[in-house]
Amino acid sequence: MIKINENYLKLNSSYLFSEIAQRVSAFQKSNPEKEIIKFGIGDVTRPLPQVCIEAFHKATDEMANEATFRGYDGDGRGYAFLREKIAQCDFQSRNADIDADEIFISDGSKCDTGNFQELFSNDIDIAVPDPVYPVYVDTNVMSGRTGAFANGRYGGLTYLECNASNGFVPQPPNNKADCIYLCFPNNPTGATITREQLTNWVEYAKSNKSLLLYDAAYVAFIRDASLPQSIFEIPGARDVAVEFRSFSKTAGFTGTRCAYTVIPRSCMAYDSKGNSHSLHKLWLRRHTTKFNGVCYMVQRAAEAVYSDIGKQQVRETIDYYLRNAKLILNEFTKLGYSCWGGENAPYIWVDVKTDSWNFFDMLLYKAGVVCTPGAGFGKCGEGYARISAFNSIEKVQKGLERIKAVIG
Amino acid sequence: MIKINENYLKLNSSYLFSEIAQRVSAFQKSNPEKEIIKFGIGDVTRPLPQVCIEAFHKATDEMANEATFRGYDGDGRGYAFLREKIAQCDFQSRNADIDADEIFISDGSKCDTGNFQELFSNDIDIAVPDPVYPVYVDTNVMSGRTGAFANGRYGGLTYLECNASNGFVPQPPNNKADCIYLCFPNNPTGATITREQLTNWVEYAKSNKSLLLYDAAYVAFIRDASLPQSIFEIPGARDVAVEFRSFSKTAGFTGTRCAYTVIPRSCMAYDSKGNSHSLHKLWLRRHTTKFNGVCYMVQRAAEAVYSDIGKQQVRETIDYYLRNAKLILNEFTKLGYSCWGGENAPYIWVDVKTDSWNFFDMLLYKAGVVCTPGAGFGKCGEGYARISAFNSIEKVQKGLERIKAVIG
Repeated sequence: MIKINENYLKLNSSYLFSEIAQRVSAFQKSNPEKEIIKFGIGDVTRPLPQVCIEAFHKATDEMANEATFRGYDGDGRGYAFLREKIAQCDFQSRNADIDADEIFISDGSKCDTGNFQELFSNDIDIAVPDPVYPVYVDTNVMSGRTGAFANGRYGGLTYLECNASNGFVPQPPNNKADCIYLCFPNNPTGATITREQLTNWVEYAKSNKSLLLYDAAYVAFIRDASLPQSIFEIPGARDVAVEFRSFSKTAGFTGTRCAYTVIPRSCMAYDSKGNSHSLHKLWLRRHTTKFNGVCYMVQRAAEAVYSDIGKQQVRETIDYYLRNAKLILNEFTKLGYSCWGGENAPYIWVDVKTDSWNFFDMLLYKAGVVCTPGAGFGKCGEGYARISAFNSIEKVQKGLERIKAVIG
Repeated sequence: MIKINENYLKLNSSYLFSEIAQRVSAFQKSNPEKEIIKFGIGDVTRPLPQVCIEAFHKATDEMANEATFRGYDGDGRGYAFLREKIAQCDFQSRNADIDADEIFISDGSKCDTGNFQELFSNDIDIAVPDPVYPVYVDTNVMSGRTGAFANGRYGGLTYLECNASNGFVPQPPNNKADCIYLCFPNNPTGATITREQLTNWVEYAKSNKSLLLYDAAYVAFIRDASLPQSIFEIPGARDVAVEFRSFSKTAGFTGTRCAYTVIPRSCMAYDSKGNSHSLHKLWLRRHTTKFNGVCYMVQRAAEAVYSDIGKQQVRETIDYYLRNAKLILNEFTKLGYSCWGGENAPYIWVDVKTDSWNFFDMLLYKAGVVCTPGAGFGKCGEGYARISAFNSIEKVQKGLERIKAVIG
């Protein structure tokens, strides 16, 4: 008899964004005339940078010709033309010692952060921030690293509580966690981490032979030059950290699909006898066995992001969203809400002074505006909402007008 | 301490195609002047069909414009425009009762066949053909469903022996396997399965509450009208089978990346209390948690395959490879080798009358031709080689001339 992985039955209801989609769909059915403004799911709205469009067309034409056609991308790690640009522009230029061979191109950071836990034993202790991007938690639940869900939390996980008193930046815990997920600029809170705070985490990981899984999908939004962009800017991080990056938010690739994971060759994990094993080598094995590379045209489009004109076009797009973020932050602050994020990040984290899903439903039914309920990101997210700056400025202004009319 | 998944340590050496790449690279270093002809890895060589190129350009232009830009693909299952075409053209037109909602678009069948086992308990009994596409086995090893590797096999797996006496089509085993991987037209042997043989498997699965994972990545090569193309042409298969399909070999998408998995809503698996659970629902949960959809332009290019002109262009490309296959089959037969496949399949499975890797090295060093050693696909593959028809006709002819000169 074919038996299921019963860990799936532990999963707390449906995936956050599916639940939101269902509630929005129900609203739309009962209010077919109402134009909905989405401040919710973190999806980009600006078109692809023109350099990417041009690179796409050019690469497509190469695929039409036998002499320039490309089949499988070698071992599926990504073309050197892209990995070398990444190593140079995203790391070496910031004195982060990462080379092209330490970079694995993939089709998304959701996939990478979700799949990476496969490399580890089921009995490691996992620590996640709370609130947290649900993928980190759910994928560990599916693998059987947690107990049952009760009172808003899974047994067996260490939750790193983030709240107003720590500015939504968790400190290393007193207990020894083996694997810690960190995300800065943060989804959902928009919080950023300082060099000093990140150094504390690297020191913690070194002391405990822990691993830091550092999600920097929103790095392009950092404008404060004092903030670290990569964890590999921190001395010693090469031995204890893996970093996830994406073109989704940087260059509008949510529908185009390209990301990468950085695994320094010196980053080790251990077997039960205490022998060290290269994570780079383990991930390469996983990658070549379960993945077959990213679309050639997409890789060429991603490469174009690193040209001078590409960097400028990306910066203009991010500036556009940051202007939206500022408008939202200012308006919610004026309305008397305490807010975090919204600077160096596309998300504004609002203390909504009521139940998260109540606020969600209120905003949806009274203003026709969709936000993301903080409770969907964990227990500590209860009482908050995530407002996204990914939108046209016209919609942001219209949405804010509606919210003012309802709340102001 | 961060501890590794020790199941990875059970994996028998490296992934087959990485091993081949390394041997070829070593040869090339010591023989830099020698032009190598690849009859090895199953990678396409013909350019993308012109309809796909046109669809790609059109979709790329849409991504340049805010009004037509596409971000995330909903819940990542793929656009309805593509799923509906697939359901209609690949299934309903052949009286296979599959609808668009039962189709999940992905970036590759390697990913899908590799990931699907995550849905199941670790104590199920897995049966794989021998020889076999290594991904089915390796991904179960990584998940801990096998014992150690000894004498060419992993403990705990049921190997369905394929050989000349059963025409490389395995019969259902006497023991009860819970999950059986089947692939037709077969990789690596090129064997096809008849309607009657496939019906036996469906009956076996129904009797034992087993699941058939049916990989039909090479279906486009079937020219014999009497052969089933989908397992869902077999009555009752909807309750006991999942089918994997890919655009890689159909339309030359190995570097473009698009595939799909079909999970009928009536296909069930069971928990330890015997309650049934919908595999469709479980996979949807996995898909939405660990995957974020396929590139929009790629989905439009895949859609174009189903237009009248697209079907014609695909057929022409496949005809080209089938002509190559016939040349190879005829030549090896003339040289006195027993061969299988090469009709309704792009692979020719040759009894090389010696050790597989010896034959590989001989062909590489004497003729500068790369084949795939049968032993890389399992114990029963020892003594065979897989010759691929994915090549230009000029290279096939040149390679065959060289082989004749060495062997003839």
